[in-house]
Amino acid sequence: MKGNVIVGQSGGPTAVINSSLAGVYKTAMERGYSKVYGMRYGIQGFLDEQYIDLSDHIRNELDLELLKRTPSAFLGTCRYKLPEIHEDKSVYERIFELLDKLKIEVFIYIGGNDSMDTIKKLTDYSLLTGAKQKFVGCPKTIDNDLAITDHTPGFGSAAKYIATSTKEIIRDAMGFSYKKKNVNIIEIMGRNAGWLTGAAALCASEDCEGPDLIYLPEVTFDIDSFVAKIKKLLEKKDVVVAVVSEGIRTKDGRYVCENSAGSETTDAFGHIQMTGTASYLAGVVQRELGCKTRAVELSTLQRAAAHLASKIDVDEAFNVGGACVKAADEGSTGVMVVIERMSDDPYQSSTGVYDVHRIANDEKIVPREWINKAGDYVNEEFLDYVRPLIQGQYSPMMVEGLPRHLTMNLKNYEWTKGH
Amino acid sequence: MKGNVIVGQSGGPTAVINSSLAGVYKTAMERGYSKVYGMRYGIQGFLDEQYIDLSDHIRNELDLELLKRTPSAFLGTCRYKLPEIHEDKSVYERIFELLDKLKIEVFIYIGGNDSMDTIKKLTDYSLLTGAKQKFVGCPKTIDNDLAITDHTPGFGSAAKYIATSTKEIIRDAMGFSYKKKNVNIIEIMGRNAGWLTGAAALCASEDCEGPDLIYLPEVTFDIDSFVAKIKKLLEKKDVVVAVVSEGIRTKDGRYVCENSAGSETTDAFGHIQMTGTASYLAGVVQRELGCKTRAVELSTLQRAAAHLASKIDVDEAFNVGGACVKAADEGSTGVMVVIERMSDDPYQSSTGVYDVHRIANDEKIVPREWINKAGDYVNEEFLDYVRPLIQGQYSPMMVEGLPRHLTMNLKNYEWTKGH
Repeated sequence: MKGNVIVGQSGGPTAVINSSLAGVYKTAMERGYSKVYGMRYGIQGFLDEQYIDLSDHIRNELDLELLKRTPSAFLGTCRYKLPEIHEDKSVYERIFELLDKLKIEVFIYIGGNDSMDTIKKLTDYSLLTGAKQKFVGCPKTIDNDLAITDHTPGFGSAAKYIATSTKEIIRDAMGFSYKKKNVNIIEIMGRNAGWLTGAAALCASEDCEGPDLIYLPEVTFDIDSFVAKIKKLLEKKDVVVAVVSEGIRTKDGRYVCENSAGSETTDAFGHIQMTGTASYLAGVVQRELGCKTRAVELSTLQRAAAHLASKIDVDEAFNVGGACVKAADEGSTGVMVVIERMSDDPYQSSTGVYDVHRIANDEKIVPREWINKAGDYVNEEFLDYVRPLIQGQYSPMMVEGLPRHLTMNLKNYEWTKGH
Repeated sequence: MKGNVIVGQSGGPTAVINSSLAGVYKTAMERGYSKVYGMRYGIQGFLDEQYIDLSDHIRNELDLELLKRTPSAFLGTCRYKLPEIHEDKSVYERIFELLDKLKIEVFIYIGGNDSMDTIKKLTDYSLLTGAKQKFVGCPKTIDNDLAITDHTPGFGSAAKYIATSTKEIIRDAMGFSYKKKNVNIIEIMGRNAGWLTGAAALCASEDCEGPDLIYLPEVTFDIDSFVAKIKKLLEKKDVVVAVVSEGIRTKDGRYVCENSAGSETTDAFGHIQMTGTASYLAGVVQRELGCKTRAVELSTLQRAAAHLASKIDVDEAFNVGGACVKAADEGSTGVMVVIERMSDDPYQSSTGVYDVHRIANDEKIVPREWINKAGDYVNEEFLDYVRPLIQGQYSPMMVEGLPRHLTMNLKNYEWTKGH
């Protein structure tokens, strides 16, 4: 008789992060584990003994399908950095005490770079103490900045949302262009990696010109050159669309958004929360060129728009979740499951495992050769890489005209009292 | 043998404005009109003799279905106000000369309040001069602020997009709430009428709490009271979501967004272009309450997100377009087609016609009794009114992972040379 599995979600959510959760649950059940627990709010909630039995919430196949279509972290998420083992052993003692109490054999953490750091530290501690649990990282991030894996679950759906929204925004702008030029600046998430920003170019197709300019954070941004390029484009056309990453920086190393009036805060990992790049640049263009400008920030919806998830992405997220259980069940620990691209055309992928010590905190950025020489657009290689990941739809389950999500009923849990 | 029909689009587009165009085209063909011309960029482009023959672009039923799913103004739009007849007759002479030249019998203008003003003036001029053309207004606006008609085509799809996005944003925020409260402020379009802002409440359902506070422009906004209410809510819950109209004003009559750093411009009708309300309020909340805040502006996508259009809305837009042709064909002029609600449950609607002189420039706002006493939420009556309008989906036609739109091939048109 096998023991139990526990799974947590950490960091920024994605449209398909719960599909990985569904994959973990289904595979664990099929492989004969007794229970699958879910940590509430990742390791942070777990430290406060907040967890649920997932079978109380996934009662049938319909619930499982709903979970795959539910955005945000179903279990709740956190940004909580474990201390170094030598700094504070008590946190680790507490975690392993709880794991023992719950008869956990497999610990799966769904997250990005920071979460793989958690898997690494827990594995290290288990090796130091001889604890028997297996620790497996399940990749997710819309940013696609995890090394080793071909891409991350969550990226494809965000890319699909961005390409669709960019196409709709371009179309909208085109309708207004008579005798009145307009400049549109769209701001996309991605602090240091331009994968999502570049994905906007996917909308260039038979029925859409696509954006005119795309600026990734991998290339130093020059405001004067930006304005000059727009000015030149406006000589030939009435509508100009530029897509910029929230993380673009000028050559002095300052984020462009640092010029904006918006507030500036940092999260638990010390990352700057960024916003206002498009709106700042729109102001500059309007001042310098005197034409109508519009700034659009796609914001939270990039990671939450489950209604437009990519089928490839939902399925891969599910498979990666399942592969985490399989890896642990077959004896692996201290690994992250990765996606391997088997073929580009037709697109085929598979999963593998990789030592988490070689992955954590290593950010994968867009190769310079996938960006054009001028640094203002992505190349065909980039598009060939991304295009397969946005294919297909998971139609939302619509109830009363809106997508239905799976919810959690917590009223029977002792720890929710008085919370 | 009947003569020709001409149709134009004016003002801000909607996700379904082209469904009305499709309805005009299909009904005109079925009723035996020879040609259906489309004005490029409304009356403004038409004055420059920019028009197309729609049959060059709608070649088959597939094109017609694609057109129904294409956002933004397929023909291009304008914000162009005709002069009063006594101020400048030459514009009118020019228009009627072109109408005669093209053998136009029916002139249909798809638009909002400002477009109905165009229909009124053209009708008046035709009555003064004995011109035989019929002029019919086809309502559209996401704002739903047209009088007489039960609601306007375009509103339902925008409401569906807003309710879906609000639900996804709330869900995203809930995942982050552990030991860290967060306040989310969502900004919705609607200058003077709060129909769209109120529609965010539709997401309150079995699987979503919905927003906590909703502020419509119909009620004077008080910043101190807003902050106090959020503070009180934060005592009881970890996530607070407020939805605000871009058009909320404080008691001195100033728009809240006038406090923001964003630029301020006016369109051809003298309307202020507004933005920055949510971001300004988020700054105030962060300063006063010290908690994590996030501002999300749904922006252009509210009117362009055809990928999430409501089936009721697409079908009604199509029917209203068809009814415009029918009205003119049966002898009406100087009218706007209106939607009449025949039944609430089950929802049924029909079309009627109404004298455009009694409609133009009369803005329909949300009745005070459909807003709660505190002025911070909508009532059940409001929800019962809006809910039927977001029902059903028109699934986008996906090509390579993205919604396909109908495009126009202009290379055979003389007037596009050198443009």
